[in-house]
Amino acid sequence: MADGKLGDNSTAIAKSKKGMKKETGLCLANSKHANFGEWYSEVVTKTEMIGYYDISGCYIIDEWAMGIWKRMQIFFDLEMEKMDVKPCYFPLFVSNDVLQKEKDHIKGFAPEVAWVTRAGDSDLEVPIAIRPTSETIIYPFFSKRIRGHRDLPFKRNQWANVVRWEFSNPTPFIRSREFLWQEGHTAFATKKEADTEVLEILELYRQLYEEYLAVPVIKGKKSEMEKFAGGLYTTSVEAFIPNTGRAVQGATSHCLGQNFAKMFDINFQDEKGKNAMVWQNSWAYSTRTIGVMVMVHGDDKGLVLPPKVSKVQVIVVHVPSDDAVTKEKIINTCSATVKTLCDSGVRAEADLRENYRPGWKYSHWEMKGVPLRIEIGQRDLTNKQVCAVRRDNGAKVDIPMVDLVDTVKGMLDTIQQNMFDVAKRKRDACIQVTKTWDEFIEALAQKKLILAPWCDEEEVEKEVKTKTKGETGSAKTLCSPFDQPEMPQGTLCFASGKPAKKWTYWGRSY
Amino acid sequence: MADGKLGDNSTAIAKSKKGMKKETGLCLANSKHANFGEWYSEVVTKTEMIGYYDISGCYIIDEWAMGIWKRMQIFFDLEMEKMDVKPCYFPLFVSNDVLQKEKDHIKGFAPEVAWVTRAGDSDLEVPIAIRPTSETIIYPFFSKRIRGHRDLPFKRNQWANVVRWEFSNPTPFIRSREFLWQEGHTAFATKKEADTEVLEILELYRQLYEEYLAVPVIKGKKSEMEKFAGGLYTTSVEAFIPNTGRAVQGATSHCLGQNFAKMFDINFQDEKGKNAMVWQNSWAYSTRTIGVMVMVHGDDKGLVLPPKVSKVQVIVVHVPSDDAVTKEKIINTCSATVKTLCDSGVRAEADLRENYRPGWKYSHWEMKGVPLRIEIGQRDLTNKQVCAVRRDNGAKVDIPMVDLVDTVKGMLDTIQQNMFDVAKRKRDACIQVTKTWDEFIEALAQKKLILAPWCDEEEVEKEVKTKTKGETGSAKTLCSPFDQPEMPQGTLCFASGKPAKKWTYWGRSY
Repeated sequence: MADGKLGDNSTAIAKSKKGMKKETGLCLANSKHANFGEWYSEVVTKTEMIGYYDISGCYIIDEWAMGIWKRMQIFFDLEMEKMDVKPCYFPLFVSNDVLQKEKDHIKGFAPEVAWVTRAGDSDLEVPIAIRPTSETIIYPFFSKRIRGHRDLPFKRNQWANVVRWEFSNPTPFIRSREFLWQEGHTAFATKKEADTEVLEILELYRQLYEEYLAVPVIKGKKSEMEKFAGGLYTTSVEAFIPNTGRAVQGATSHCLGQNFAKMFDINFQDEKGKNAMVWQNSWAYSTRTIGVMVMVHGDDKGLVLPPKVSKVQVIVVHVPSDDAVTKEKIINTCSATVKTLCDSGVRAEADLRENYRPGWKYSHWEMKGVPLRIEIGQRDLTNKQVCAVRRDNGAKVDIPMVDLVDTVKGMLDTIQQNMFDVAKRKRDACIQVTKTWDEFIEALAQKKLILAPWCDEEEVEKEVKTKTKGETGSAKTLCSPFDQPEMPQGTLCFASGKPAKKWTYWGRSY
Repeated sequence: MADGKLGDNSTAIAKSKKGMKKETGLCLANSKHANFGEWYSEVVTKTEMIGYYDISGCYIIDEWAMGIWKRMQIFFDLEMEKMDVKPCYFPLFVSNDVLQKEKDHIKGFAPEVAWVTRAGDSDLEVPIAIRPTSETIIYPFFSKRIRGHRDLPFKRNQWANVVRWEFSNPTPFIRSREFLWQEGHTAFATKKEADTEVLEILELYRQLYEEYLAVPVIKGKKSEMEKFAGGLYTTSVEAFIPNTGRAVQGATSHCLGQNFAKMFDINFQDEKGKNAMVWQNSWAYSTRTIGVMVMVHGDDKGLVLPPKVSKVQVIVVHVPSDDAVTKEKIINTCSATVKTLCDSGVRAEADLRENYRPGWKYSHWEMKGVPLRIEIGQRDLTNKQVCAVRRDNGAKVDIPMVDLVDTVKGMLDTIQQNMFDVAKRKRDACIQVTKTWDEFIEALAQKKLILAPWCDEEEVEKEVKTKTKGETGSAKTLCSPFDQPEMPQGTLCFASGKPAKKWTYWGRSY
């Protein structure tokens, strides 16, 4: 697969470079249930989301994925404007001196930092790092720009590529050495404002996952061990992949407190003329979102895309006719249908290619995950209707032409909601409350998303990690959900037996 | 200036970190005529377009510039959609082996390539290059994806950062070690299609400069010496900075011919089943566009922004009144004016801050380059009018409230057109036709944009370069304009005395 040939499905009968004819199969060779990892690679390449690349851990993001990313960007940029977060672009490079300024921060990232040491034939005087994240790049600028209380709040967001040279299991979108993200950096006069914004942003991330990607997530707070290196506390949205029983950190919104303000001298004169330090946040979501969406919704036919993010929401396919006049009528009706839908704001396209059988086209667009297929043939012309087929559940329905726009829009909404509901039911079915170590271990073996009472002690967390070390990593805390179930007096920690302080989600994760 | 303090103009009375009061002047310390380089640095920093950074040649692109960049992106992305060029994202890194594949290409870029040799504490087995451009990154993917004639044309565009570790005179936007650009890469079955697209794209670049940035450019073809390394021929739009007498390559659209197709094995089966090689183009414009715009239009009060790209097109400022009731009426009228304008699609904002004098605000928004200022005071309330002041020429006009929207829209169009006309007159006044070496040298000394008959021989071009070497580089060919003046029979090359083949623009350049 690494040679990328699987990415080619644009011709039914492809001819290899050597001139040999061969059938390009449209079925997936792998099944989601039986061999998830291979299935995932096959889906993202065959649908032209991803191209493989000759540097390990780097991937080509092709148009079918880029369209989704762009739609998410439009949503997020609008929200940024409402919140008066201003767009900007900071350098890719950071000097070693600046990178080292916040000790906890650099400790967290140092093992994965890529270093430039040479330009042309010359060695650089000092090596320069490529950003793994931009706190240390951006905050000297904050220090210069922020002077008085009138400069606050000070808010910037950038869309950028970042590099983390990870050495374990690269996976397209989910874990790659370079990825795309937005990173927001903000400074406030008070902790209260910072706290408020952390949750406002987290809510945007929830909306992106649940309302755009139709992926249920849990909002919560990270443990001290799992929080952002150098920050005060980290909140996150956590998703879950039932097939592998692994959780995945969806996006994070950090309150940095005043640690960076101290190191980078970001202070201001308050209304009384006194010097004060700012409170800061940083927050990010990345192209990982796309991978989570594929893993949650995809099936053995390929992608299943939520209508809100799919570049094509409706694909119109003509059912050929041997009669030339009828054929022309069908083709014209298809084009008119696309126009009507597009004019009313639905993203529709027609596939009127003559050199593919309808069956091939159905499979093709099913693999691409297009939410709704409309077929138009002679019968439909006669009955003044079209036949619509849902990608999410295969349901087929005839739509009278007069109701076309309203019905299609209604169906797209239904598909969006149904995809979320189904994903949530599956996710919820995996949640297992465990109160003892034995229950915990059993649930872990059963690929559950575990909710357990915990004493909130780092030593205990480390011990659990050590004791559960396996092929796909250790079990660790995912988050303590904001939505805490009641905890009866005297509840003990599942791992230490000490008094429990909070309910916390545990699991293996990506 | 490098400490970036000049970037702070958000408070009239700023207080330094040490608590000392100081006036933040709003005038520029430098004049465009007297000391252009310092003037330029001051303008881009004081207006919060650029922040200086501690790595030489790297700059922070702040919101006032990013807003312009985003507006250009919206235009260009729409055109990409019309041309069916699909969005994508390719890796930042390229292996040495792949980078070396096209020999002329790598020769052109090798001296400026930044190399990653280490990740964390580990040396990489082989150094990895950071893209200076992406031909060698993208074309192995083209080779995999393109099989049959039905896959053609194959078109991709990405928005990305690229790195060229230049060692001479960094200048914000114009010459930086990292910059943002779009790069388009396309493949066609025939040379004719490729040729056509080269010019279609060049026309988009002309539109960006002339219709968006109001900067006149010359379309033409680069000499063999100045063409893209590894390509077949290069077309460009060339701008000119009258103050420095230096030309600047605005954007380039290259026909790559079949050189890369050969090296990267990009072939396809044509309709007759025969193997053929594709014809390729690549084309790009970068954040350099913004720098050219600043240099061409800016004046001693600061930026002058064309309405089409300015984030704020109209700034509404209230003229205070001592009478509380009148004051409230004025403020309300300002807000209502902004709303009326925004509702009709004009990008308007109000500056109703009480802690700044109107005069300070006028200077502030003039420095920021906002095309139109609307002042509203007691007199205007009485007369049911507003007072509008143009940034481009200082003209002041009273607008009856009933005509507000139409008049403002008309004025914005006029400003856009006038800025282009003025810039074009200035540029045209600099064009000097020279037919002899002596005329050429004199025109060069007078900072002219030189149009001269040339024999089109590389040796001659090299000789001119050597003989004109100066502080700001040598004179070189800019382009042979598509719009060729008549060339009388027997016209000789200004430099070699041989028969001239074409009119060519010459000059020093950025």
